Amino acid sequence: MGSEIQKNFVEKNAEYAQTFDKGDLALPPAKKYLILTCMDARIDPAAAFGISLGDAHVIRNAGASAKDAQRSIVISEQLLGTREIILVKHTGCGMLTFTNDDAHALVKQNLGPTAAAELGPLDFLTFTDLEAAVQEDVGFLKRSATVPEDVKITGWVYEVETGKVRQVV
Amino acid sequence: MGSEIQKNFVEKNAEYAQTFDKGDLALPPAKKYLILTCMDARIDPAAAFGISLGDAHVIRNAGASAKDAQRSIVISEQLLGTREIILVKHTGCGMLTFTNDDAHALVKQNLGPTAAAELGPLDFLTFTDLEAAVQEDVGFLKRSATVPEDVKITGWVYEVETGKVRQVV
Repeated sequence: MGSEIQKNFVEKNAEYAQTFDKGDLALPPAKKYLILTCMDARIDPAAAFGISLGDAHVIRNAGASAKDAQRSIVISEQLLGTREIILVKHTGCGMLTFTNDDAHALVKQNLGPTAAAELGPLDFLTFTDLEAAVQEDVGFLKRSATVPEDVKITGWVYEVETGKVRQVV
Repeated sequence: MGSEIQKNFVEKNAEYAQTFDKGDLALPPAKKYLILTCMDARIDPAAAFGISLGDAHVIRNAGASAKDAQRSIVISEQLLGTREIILVKHTGCGMLTFTNDDAHALVKQNLGPTAAAELGPLDFLTFTDLEAAVQEDVGFLKRSATVPEDVKITGWVYEVETGKVRQVV
């Protein structure tokens, strides 16, 4: 017996599949780009960023961290041919609300020393200034030898209050 | 002057923002769950998995790897209160089409020794059997001390050919 969340997932998927007609799209993204954004619940990349099915890779993690996404970005570019990266962080991000030390302390307190040991010295990749974090991550990608120089990289902020994007770099 | 991809991004976003009326959603996901799926261009999680804006975290990486998503999952649960994980890998995944050695060889050949050194012994987290990979990743999460025992975890396959999901575990 599934949870309410699983029931919703299965029911809404059945509706989606009923009119689904995009079963022959190719594996590599048709428009050869990737969007890297946050896992935040208030972001719907396909709708907000105009991504048609099959056109772009979408990588999402806590804070839209470029460092955390490196494995996926290398695969996207070296194996699946993407040539442009659009990095989008957002206002009101959870990563602005706690520090690395806060997160480690919370894990130890809530989950105990075994969990803390499993994570080790993990960097939770929090940040304190949104625009600066966009610039830093774009800089990280531009400096990285794993991203070829002809790959276009831009950095943006999405405003969860207005639904609007603005370019930072 | 932006690329065609940036122009599309800005124009489609302006259309989205014009009718946007969800500017007051809370930071924590309202339905307290997260979906972990692949960055694959053929997946639109909001549409295919019935996620309403504000309801769930969506984590995406190459192959929907649970190990690669650990930082984001801990943040989602310990700092933002999610209590259920739906892990979705998919048919035709790129991660089934190459090996870890292939990827490292390609990076070295295309990008040179500096890029190879930057990645170091990175595990690209490829897999050879889709259902087994779903089971392994769910097992990884269930065994992890960083995921509390009361967090529900299920594993699914999404068929890019039909738009349908099916439960594996």
